[in-house]
Formats: sequence, structure tokens, C-alpha cells
Amino acid sequence: MALKIKDIIITPVAFHDMPLLNSVGVHEPFALRSIIEVVTDGDTYGLGESYGDSTHLHRLQKAAEQIRGLSVYDTNGIYQRCIESLVGDTTTGGDGMAGMVTTASVADKVFSPFEVACLDIQGKVAGVPVSDLLGGRVRDNVPYSAYLFYKWKGHPGEPDDEYGEALDAAGLVKQARTIVDEYGFKAIKLKGGVYPPAQEVEAVKALHAAFPGVPLRIDPNAAWTVETSKWVAKELEGIIEYLEDPAPEIEGMAAVAREAKMPLATNMAVVAFSHLPSSISQGAVQVILSDHHFWGGLRKSQALAAICATWGMRLSMHSNSHLGISLAAMSHLASATPNLDYACDTHWPWKRRDEDVVVDGSLKWVDGGVAVPTTPGLGVELDREKLARLHRQYLDCGLRKRDDTTYMKKFHPDFSADIPRW
Amino acid sequence: MALKIKDIIITPVAFHDMPLLNSVGVHEPFALRSIIEVVTDGDTYGLGESYGDSTHLHRLQKAAEQIRGLSVYDTNGIYQRCIESLVGDTTTGGDGMAGMVTTASVADKVFSPFEVACLDIQGKVAGVPVSDLLGGRVRDNVPYSAYLFYKWKGHPGEPDDEYGEALDAAGLVKQARTIVDEYGFKAIKLKGGVYPPAQEVEAVKALHAAFPGVPLRIDPNAAWTVETSKWVAKELEGIIEYLEDPAPEIEGMAAVAREAKMPLATNMAVVAFSHLPSSISQGAVQVILSDHHFWGGLRKSQALAAICATWGMRLSMHSNSHLGISLAAMSHLASATPNLDYACDTHWPWKRRDEDVVVDGSLKWVDGGVAVPTTPGLGVELDREKLARLHRQYLDCGLRKRDDTTYMKKFHPDFSADIPRW
Repeated sequence: MALKIKDIIITPVAFHDMPLLNSVGVHEPFALRSIIEVVTDGDTYGLGESYGDSTHLHRLQKAAEQIRGLSVYDTNGIYQRCIESLVGDTTTGGDGMAGMVTTASVADKVFSPFEVACLDIQGKVAGVPVSDLLGGRVRDNVPYSAYLFYKWKGHPGEPDDEYGEALDAAGLVKQARTIVDEYGFKAIKLKGGVYPPAQEVEAVKALHAAFPGVPLRIDPNAAWTVETSKWVAKELEGIIEYLEDPAPEIEGMAAVAREAKMPLATNMAVVAFSHLPSSISQGAVQVILSDHHFWGGLRKSQALAAICATWGMRLSMHSNSHLGISLAAMSHLASATPNLDYACDTHWPWKRRDEDVVVDGSLKWVDGGVAVPTTPGLGVELDREKLARLHRQYLDCGLRKRDDTTYMKKFHPDFSADIPRW
Repeated sequence: MALKIKDIIITPVAFHDMPLLNSVGVHEPFALRSIIEVVTDGDTYGLGESYGDSTHLHRLQKAAEQIRGLSVYDTNGIYQRCIESLVGDTTTGGDGMAGMVTTASVADKVFSPFEVACLDIQGKVAGVPVSDLLGGRVRDNVPYSAYLFYKWKGHPGEPDDEYGEALDAAGLVKQARTIVDEYGFKAIKLKGGVYPPAQEVEAVKALHAAFPGVPLRIDPNAAWTVETSKWVAKELEGIIEYLEDPAPEIEGMAAVAREAKMPLATNMAVVAFSHLPSSISQGAVQVILSDHHFWGGLRKSQALAAICATWGMRLSMHSNSHLGISLAAMSHLASATPNLDYACDTHWPWKRRDEDVVVDGSLKWVDGGVAVPTTPGLGVELDREKLARLHRQYLDCGLRKRDDTTYMKKFHPDFSADIPRW
């Protein structure tokens, strides 16, 4: 059974996003993603999803040209071709991180959606879900966290969105209530780095009071100095389960870790295998927020999990704005990785219910988690009409990269994305 | 496709071995192995091979009882059942290491053959070789090394064996010539720790003179003190590609590593994931000799490979006396693991040509390496007549564990296996 890759179709899409605030600005009206279809000579297709910035799309396209003809089992060969396709690449950026994370491995980012699509095909051919290819489910329902954001009531000049404004503790508690009521999330994360730390500490305390016993996290995207981070850590002792990326860089995190009583988590200081030795030798972080989109796919994420298990670190999962293919891949991975046992992050609630590229109903939210699909492969199929609609939206919206900072400056010209800010 | 495990059959076998000398004694007339057949409800079977000591056999049997009914894809579940089956286990030993390596993870040793058998089945069902399940072959031929031993001419009281005596440099050069001529090996390893270090250094130098340009290694199984190891390292500078387990323990290796100019390799100081943090922080070893039999199977060996890649260590492969199922598994693993790029060790030449449990001809030696089978699964099938013969041999030979030391003392009562000896 050759299962050679006959064709690869990469479709950029855009879906509506809400004005969510963070340390580098505010989410634009549309989020971009790329949808990757890998088609075999037997006309089985597999799906991957990745960033939609034009730089990244160009890299994916170049890699795709090199990959055609390889077997869907030859992920070693596909990885090598991705590396080769990047030789001489001098473009910068190329992700969906708005400049917040720039040091991930470009090869791992490019490889990831192809690997996911190949595993989708491998699962379909073997008649088993991707979770089985990853060692089998240790949990049938993958818990996610309620991902709270400070936000405007709507994009400037547009009507209010369904969640409305959240610019203070009361607004966040209300937002949390809405999201938790709908999804049943059992952990809550606040995206911070937006207001002075004392305000955000008060917001976390308000959440703690409103949701006693619910594990909380705050993530200012490295907007704080080491000293400020230590102060926050002290204030939130016994209240948060981990403190995410308080200060920039491995050295900054290590300095905070020496005093903080709770674990420190990161998806900024350690975002590639090459960062692990230094981070581990300094004891900089205790929780890695994995993300298969930049850690090189599902199997490499499991290698990261093995490293965490070996060095006594724990694992959670990072999220960017994403669609159903990514949610399926994230859920399969978490379901089959025993030590990925924190509730994972997802931007899912911020996406319009009718906007996706997968057929409705394949991903079911139950009790704050996703019921891992048990049908062959990822368990999601393309809805080609929806794909066409979101591609049309991509063409029409005019956005070609994520730039939260420029969008913010349009309304607040003196905004600065420099970190640490406080 | 459920692919539930319906039955597991564990058959102990014995095959003739030659009087090979090492730091703890001499190989007995028979080597023991266990042959594991995992049978699905659809009557597909998969093969694994492991140690044959009675302690290990008992543990395998207990684990097998727990594993029945699980899916062959549920390796997470199988691992968990192995752990549970070991609760309360107070037996010691249980491998084929003659006491040389005692700190490997018992759960990983027990789990390994079941995982290999499950991958064999997964490959058969998908119609692809196990190498494809591991990421695809980066090499079609897996190079092995010529594994030289000081040896007696035959077992005492028996006729000379086909290789005859090798008790000095000349004998080893002759042995190397014979083995290299037959197999085409392009690297040579000498099992040392048998004679005073100066004699073994002279032997390596003689091999270097006889095989100029051929990568050499020597492995005294930690029979040397740190000081002696440093002296040997200096003597063999520019002659050996790595120095294997010169001194005992991570601390001993670290002390040698601080002075040795060549990489140090180990399959004694670091034999489990739990040993890696300490070894890495001390810079104790530069090459890990992986072995899927005690590193928890093929996928966990690939996790080890990812760790080596991350921390800049290299990978080679350790061997015990083994049969064709293990050779197939070792070859699939090495073929699909890019950084497992040293020639692997194998005891293959010391096994009688007509003694195995797999059908003849599935494993082909070409140019010092094994042509990785490309048929589905491991690519080896059981020859049930041969299996029955080797099982009969197990029953008749009376050996129930490997004990090189007692066998040596039968002929040399004052022999001591204490290390470091020199």
C-alpha cells in the first residue's frame, strides 16, 4: 500500500474574531488560518490546519511542492523536505502570534500541518482514530479551560458582539459566567498584560471569589518585569494553579521561579526543543504549554511530553485562534498523552458558531471538554461550502498577517507593545 | 476495527551460545529468550522477543493476563497494566544481563515485547512495515558492528566451536577477519574488561593496524577505575570512535569524560529515562547505547532519540544475545530514527545459523548491515517447528537464568566479578 501523496491543497481562510485585548494590542476583526488537504494516489485525503499569514502560506506552499510523491508514512522524509524547502528563506515572521513568539522552529511550524494530515490519512486507512496512532486514549473527554479576555464591546464602528465589554473584574466575572455556563469549563485562564498588574490581580481575586475551587491561571504574555512578577506571584499564592509567562525570556522566568510558590508555565520562553536544555538547567519553568502547531506536530509533541515526564515538568496546551481541524488534532493529542493533564487552552468560544471548515457535529463539547472523535483519522471532514465561504472571507477581508499592534494603534496611537511594560 | 488482544502466548526458548568472555564471567552453553505472540480477535498475530530468565518470564506472564482484551493500539493502556501487574513484585533480576545492568526500569522491560508485537500487528493491518509506523526509513540498510569477544576455543568438555580461541590480540584480529569477511561489517567493537587494560589496549591497537580506518570501540563493562579509564582514553585517542562504559556509574563516567578526548558511550550508567537528568547535568556520556528491550519498546526508544537530539548526544545501539524477532525490531527502529546513526551492536554472528524462531530468509545481511524488511509489520514470521525445537532445548538445557559468573567459577573458582577490577 503505497499511499503516496498525489496532491496538497492549501487554502487560506479568515473567520470573524472579536476585539480581544492582550499585551501587544487587540485582535483584528478576522483571524487567519490555512487549511491543508493532503490527497493520496488512492484519493484518501487528510486534513491539517495552521497559521494563515502570507509568509507562512508561502513557506507551506514551497514545502508542499517538495513533499508530493512521498508516502504519508514517511514523516521523516517530509520533515527533511520541509527543512530543504526553507534553505535560503530570509523572510521573517510567519505565524499567528502577532510578534509575541518569534523563536519557534520554522521547520517545525511548516512540518506540523502536513504531519497531522498524514496521521489523519494513516488513521483512515487503518480504520482507527488518530488518538490510537498516538498510543490510545487515556481520556475520552479532553478538558479545556475558559479562556477569558479583557475586551471591547465590539470592533470600533461595529455593533456590540455577543459577549460585550469586559474591561474590569466585574466584566470578566460576567464573561466567565457566560462561557462556563455554556461550555462547562472547569478551569479558567485570564489573558492579562493589558492593565496595570494590580488591576489584573484584583480581577483574578474576583474570579477566585466568584468561582471558588476552580483552578485559575493568568497570562500577561511577559508584560511584567521580574520584580513585578514576583509581587504578583506573592499576591496570587494559593489562588492560581500556575502563573503563565509573567516575565520575558528563560532568564527572567528562572528569576521569578526562584521565589514564586506556584509553578511557572510558558509558551513564550520555551517554544522549541533547542530551548529546553537551558530552561531545564536553570529551572526556569515547571509547566510547558505545548502546541503542536509549533512543536512539529503530534508525535514531536509527544516527544516533548516524554521530556517533561523525564525532567519532572508538567504539560498543558497553548492555543491561538483556530478552527475545528486544530481542535480535533489538539484533542486527539491530549487524549493520548497521559501527562498532558492540565485543562488545555482554546479560543473556541470566541469563534462564531456558524464559522468553521469542518462538518457540523463532529466535535462535541461535553462538561467543559471535547469528546474525542472515535471515527477513523481526526474524525472531522471538510465542509467544502463552508471552506469556500471562509476562503472568500479571506480574499475579501484584506488581512494578510496578524497585526494586533497596528490595529490597536489605529484607535490608540500612543499604544506601545514593548515588554516588559510594568 | 477493534483489534482486541485475544491471547498472548509466551514461549521460553534456548539457543546455543559460545564461551564469550566478559567482566562478569563467560557465556554459558545456552542463551535464553522469550518469544511473545500477541493474537487479536481477528487472528492476526504479532511478535515480540525479550529476556528468558524465569523472573522475567513470570513478570511477562502476569502482565499478559492483565493485557488481554485491550486494543493493540492502546499501548498507553498496556503500559499502565504492566505497571499494575508489577505492584507488589519483590523479585529481583529478571533480564539477560548477568548482573551487569540492574537499574533499568522493570516496567519498561516488561512492556517492550508487547509493544513490539502490537506494532507488528498494526503494521500488518495497515499493510506497512513497522519502520513506516516509526516515521519511515531514512536508511534501507541498517549497519551493525562486528562484535568481538575474547573467547575460549569451545565450552569446556565440548569440541571447539567454529570461531575457536581468541585470548590475545592475534586471536582477536583473526576473529575480526572471519566475521568481517562474512558479514561485511564496517565498524568493530571489542568486549573488554577481561584482561588487564594494557593487554586490551594493545589488542585495540592491533585491530587498528589490521583494519586501518575502521571505526573501533572497546567496552570493558565498567571494569576500570576512573584513573585507569583516563589512561586508556589517552592511549586510544584517535583510534576509537567512542569509549564504552569504562568506569562504573554516572559519576565515574563524568569524571572520565572531563579528560577523555573521545565521546563516552553507555548502556550501563544510563539505562532508563530517570537516569538522564543527572547524566546530562554532569555531562557524563556523549553517546547513549539505546536498547528497545529495556527502554520500553520502539516508540519510547524514539523518545530517547529525541532527547539525545535535544541535548546534543548521539545514539548507538546495545545488544544482548538475541534471535531474529529482535534483529528485525532493532533494524526497523534504527532505520526510522535519523540520529541513530552509529553502527548498531549485535551478537548475531555468535548464534548458530540454523537456530532461530523466524522463517529463514526474511532478514538479509548486506554489506555489514541488515536490509530492513519492507513487508508488512516486522517482516518476520514464526517458524513453529523451529520454535518448538528451541523451546525443547530450553526445557532440556536446565538453565533458567543467565549466570556468567557461576559458570566461570566452575572452571576458575577464584574468579571475581567485582568491578572496577583494574
